[in-house]
Amino acid sequence: MSCNLIGTLCHVSVLTESLQIMDPNTSGLLQRLTEAGQSHLLHFWDKLSPDERACLNQELQGIDFQEVNGFFKRAMESSGSGGKNEKMDARMEPVPQDVLGSVTRDRGSLKRWEQKGLECISQGKVAVLLLAGGQGTRLGVSYPKGMYDVGLPSKKTLFQIQAERILKLQHLSEEKHKSKCTIPWYIMTSGRTMESTKDFFSRRNYFGLDKNNVIFFQQGMLPAMDYDGKIILENKCKLSMAPDGNGGLYRALGNQGICDDMQRRGIEFIHVYCVDNILVKVADPAFVGFCVEKNADCGAKVVEKSNPTEAVGVVCKVDGLYQVVEYSEITLATAEKRSADGRLMFNAGNVANHFFSFSFLKDIVEKYEPKLQHHVARKKIPFVDHQGQLITPDKPNGIKMEKFVFDIFQFAKTFVVYEVLREDEFSPLKNSDHQDGKDTPTTARHALMSLHHRWVLNAGGHFIDENGTRVPAIPSLKDGTDHPIKCEISPLVSYGGEGLEVLVKDRGFHPTLIIEESGIKSGF
Amino acid sequence: MSCNLIGTLCHVSVLTESLQIMDPNTSGLLQRLTEAGQSHLLHFWDKLSPDERACLNQELQGIDFQEVNGFFKRAMESSGSGGKNEKMDARMEPVPQDVLGSVTRDRGSLKRWEQKGLECISQGKVAVLLLAGGQGTRLGVSYPKGMYDVGLPSKKTLFQIQAERILKLQHLSEEKHKSKCTIPWYIMTSGRTMESTKDFFSRRNYFGLDKNNVIFFQQGMLPAMDYDGKIILENKCKLSMAPDGNGGLYRALGNQGICDDMQRRGIEFIHVYCVDNILVKVADPAFVGFCVEKNADCGAKVVEKSNPTEAVGVVCKVDGLYQVVEYSEITLATAEKRSADGRLMFNAGNVANHFFSFSFLKDIVEKYEPKLQHHVARKKIPFVDHQGQLITPDKPNGIKMEKFVFDIFQFAKTFVVYEVLREDEFSPLKNSDHQDGKDTPTTARHALMSLHHRWVLNAGGHFIDENGTRVPAIPSLKDGTDHPIKCEISPLVSYGGEGLEVLVKDRGFHPTLIIEESGIKSGF
Repeated sequence: MSCNLIGTLCHVSVLTESLQIMDPNTSGLLQRLTEAGQSHLLHFWDKLSPDERACLNQELQGIDFQEVNGFFKRAMESSGSGGKNEKMDARMEPVPQDVLGSVTRDRGSLKRWEQKGLECISQGKVAVLLLAGGQGTRLGVSYPKGMYDVGLPSKKTLFQIQAERILKLQHLSEEKHKSKCTIPWYIMTSGRTMESTKDFFSRRNYFGLDKNNVIFFQQGMLPAMDYDGKIILENKCKLSMAPDGNGGLYRALGNQGICDDMQRRGIEFIHVYCVDNILVKVADPAFVGFCVEKNADCGAKVVEKSNPTEAVGVVCKVDGLYQVVEYSEITLATAEKRSADGRLMFNAGNVANHFFSFSFLKDIVEKYEPKLQHHVARKKIPFVDHQGQLITPDKPNGIKMEKFVFDIFQFAKTFVVYEVLREDEFSPLKNSDHQDGKDTPTTARHALMSLHHRWVLNAGGHFIDENGTRVPAIPSLKDGTDHPIKCEISPLVSYGGEGLEVLVKDRGFHPTLIIEESGIKSGF
Repeated sequence: MSCNLIGTLCHVSVLTESLQIMDPNTSGLLQRLTEAGQSHLLHFWDKLSPDERACLNQELQGIDFQEVNGFFKRAMESSGSGGKNEKMDARMEPVPQDVLGSVTRDRGSLKRWEQKGLECISQGKVAVLLLAGGQGTRLGVSYPKGMYDVGLPSKKTLFQIQAERILKLQHLSEEKHKSKCTIPWYIMTSGRTMESTKDFFSRRNYFGLDKNNVIFFQQGMLPAMDYDGKIILENKCKLSMAPDGNGGLYRALGNQGICDDMQRRGIEFIHVYCVDNILVKVADPAFVGFCVEKNADCGAKVVEKSNPTEAVGVVCKVDGLYQVVEYSEITLATAEKRSADGRLMFNAGNVANHFFSFSFLKDIVEKYEPKLQHHVARKKIPFVDHQGQLITPDKPNGIKMEKFVFDIFQFAKTFVVYEVLREDEFSPLKNSDHQDGKDTPTTARHALMSLHHRWVLNAGGHFIDENGTRVPAIPSLKDGTDHPIKCEISPLVSYGGEGLEVLVKDRGFHPTLIIEESGIKSGF
C-alpha cells in the first residue's frame, strides 16, 4: 500500500525538479484536474513524501484528462447492455464465399499463393508486426509472454521460435529468388514489457537477426476508471494504469514513427500477429500471397469454430461491414445457426492474425483510428479508499478502456478471410498448467510436437517405441498416456514441413527426436 | 501374491468336494491340459493348500482349452503388423452419402424420425442394451463405472441418469400414443461387475423402473496368454482372466437366453450403447426412427472427427464392407484425406452407439458371431514366474483377446450411419481427474451442464450473475473461470430439451439452477 515502488516507476530526474514546479496550485495541474473532474487524484497529496509527490506529478502531467474523459464518455455510451445483443442477431451476416480462401478447400491454389508471398518477401515488401504488449498475468509469470519456455526439448522461448521462422523464411526467399532480403520485425510492447523485452533480445543477440531489423515500439496506457468516470488510484501516489488494448497499435504506429520507418523501407504488406500462438506462421507466404492476389487491403486468418459455445470471436459482417463479434456478444440462437452443409454459419474464428496493406495501415493511423471508440471491460480493480486503505474488490468496480486490433476491419475496401487448420496453426498460450487445461504450456508444447510428428510422418519417416514396435500414426491414448511423440524440428531446418524428406524418409526414429541445423538427435 | 482372495473368488461349495475328485490325474484335468499344451497351469499344484486347489480346479474345469487355443491361433494370425496398415489405405472408402443421416443437414426430417421412433417405442418394439462390463480401472475406481457420480448438483450416477431417461421416454411415448409402454433395459455386466451392479440397482429400487424390465446378463471371460499361447497365471492358484471385449455381447446374448427374452417381449429394434457416455440419448427416438425408416438392420451413431489425429475409430467401408477402422490402424495420409468441402474424408467417429433390428441380432448370435476372430491387445500382464515370484512387467508380455461390438457391421445388409453433434450427445467418462484432462469426471459434468444451460437459453430463459448482470450465452473464460453455468435438469423433466418453455421462458435464474420434477431451485 505504500509507494515503495516509486523508485522503479518514475525517473530519478524528476526528483531534482523544484518543489515549486510540483505544486499543483502553481503548476496549473490542480486547475486541469478540477476542470476534468479528477481532482480526487490529489486527495493524498498533503500526506505524500517529496519523492512520492514527484512521481505522482510526473504521471499526472503525462495525461490529457479531457481526452481521457472523452474516451470514457463515448466508450460508456456505446457499451450498455440489455437488448443490444438480440438486436445484433438480425444485423449479422456470415463471410461471403467469394472473399474466403481455405487451405483445405483451395488446395490447388496454395502453391501459387505461397510463391506469390515468397516473391513479395524477396522484394523486401513484407514486414511482420508482433503484438506483445500483454503481460503473462493469467500465465502466472511477471515477464513478457514471449520469453516463456513451454518446455520443449530445445527449451526455446516463443520469441526465439518466431525469430527463427523469420530467419528461415528469409533464407527460403533468398534461395528461390537469388537475392538477399529482409523481413523487418516490428515488436509492440507496453510500458510494462518494453525494457525486459529489449533486454532479452539484446542478451540473446536477436536470435541471429540483424538488430537493425528488429524494431521495438510501445503502445499507450490508459487509466482505469470507476463507473462515474473518476480515475482510480492504485495507491496514494499512483494511478491504476493499463495498456490501451492491442488496438493501441494504430496510435502507437503513428506517434512513434513506425509508419514512417515502414515507408522508408518500402514495406507494402504487413503481417500482424499475437505473441502467444506457438504455431504462428510468421509472415506466412501463402496467406500473404492470397491477400496480395485478392488485392486486399485487409485480411484475417481464421480457424473454423466448430462448437457453438466455443469462446472465440467470429469474423462476420454487421450492417454490411466486416467486424469481429466477440463470443460474449453473440446470442446462442445465432451461435448455433448452421448452413445447409451442417457447419456453423458463423464459424470464422478470429485468431488475432491479420494482413494489412501499407497504404491501408497508413490511412488507419492517419484518418480512421482516432474515430474509434474504446471498448469497456468491467474489472475488479484494486483501489485506495478515502482513508488510504487498499481495497481489493470482489466484484467489478470499474472499467478498463481498450481498442482492439480488429476494430478497423470496417474501413477496409477489400477485405478477405483465409481459413487455416487449427491443429496446424493455432495453439495460444494463455493459462498456467495449474488451471483448467485449456491453452496452457502443456497444450502449446503438445500442439507443436504433434505438428512436427506429422511433418516427419508426411516426409516418410516413422517412430519406433522402446519395445522396438513401430508407433501408429495416432499414438495410443490408453493407460493415460495422452502424450504426443516427443519430436521437435528447428524452424531453421523447416518453416512449414518442407525439406524434411532428405533427412527422414524411410528412417525409424526413437522419440525424443530433435532435428536441428547441426544434425539429428534421436533416443529415449 | 498369496491366494488370499480365494474366499471371494470361488464358491464355498467346492470346498466340500473330495480331494479325489480334484486330483488332476484322476479327474482327467491333467490330460486335458497336457493335450492343450497348458499343463504349466498346474506347476504350483503340489504347493497349494486344499482350498487353493479347490479354487484353481474349479476355474480350470470351466475353461474349454482347445477352444481358447483356437481363439489364440486365429487371433494371432490375423493380428501381425508391418505393412498391413499401408495396404488398408487403398481398401478404405468413406460412408456414402445415401446411407448417411445428419442432425445438422437433415433438420427437415428430424421431427418425422422422432415421431417414428416414439411410435415404435409406444408399441413396445424398442429395447435398450447397455454395455457395462468394463471396470473403472482408468477412472481409478474399483466399482462399475455406471455407479460413478461425476459431481453433478444432484449427485446422480450414470446409471440413474440413464434410468430416468428411459422413464421419461416411456412417459413421452405413452402421452403421445395414449397407451402404456415399456422399454426393456438389458444390462451386460462382466464377472467382475455383475454382483455390485445388481446390488446397486436393487438398493436404489431400480430408479423407479419396473425390476422385471431391467435384465442383467454377463459377458464371458477369457484367459490372458503369452506370445507362445500359454495361459498366464496371475498367482499360483489363479489364471489371469479378462472380459472378452464388448463384442462378447453376442455370445452372451445367445448363451444366457437374452435373445429368447427379446423375442418373447416382441422386441424389434435394439439400441446398444456404452455406459460411460453421460450425454447418451438412451433409445434416441430420432435415431431409432431414422434407422427404421431406412429399413436398416444395423446403424451406427457417429460424431464428426474434425482433427486428423484425434484418437477415435472411424466408420467406413473396407473392401466394400462396413467396419470401424481404429485410430491405431490408420495411416496419417489417410487420416488427413479431405473431401472437396474441406472436411476429413474419414470423419464418421465411432461412439459405441448402435442400432440393430432384432432379426439381424438373432442372425448374428446364431450364425455370424462364431466366425469372428478375436482382436489382439498386447498388454503388460502381471504374472508369477517359475519360482512363484510375482512379476509386474515393464513392457507388454502377453495378449488379451477381445471381440468388438462393431465387428459385425460387415454382415449388415442395410447399414446406415447417423451423425449427431458431439456437444449434444457424446462425452465419455474414461479417466480420472488426476490425468490429462480428457474424458474425465470434470469434462463429463461440464458437458452435461453446458447442454442443460443451452436448453434453458433455447427455451427462452437466461442467467443472472452475482452482480445482477445478465450472463452472456457463452460465459467468459477470462480470469481462469473456464466453468459452465451450473445448471442441471432432471431427465424426468426433459429428455432432450423439450417441455421447458413453460418453466423458464422470460425468467432469469441464478446459477446453480436445478430443475427437478418437484420444482425449480435457483441460487448461489
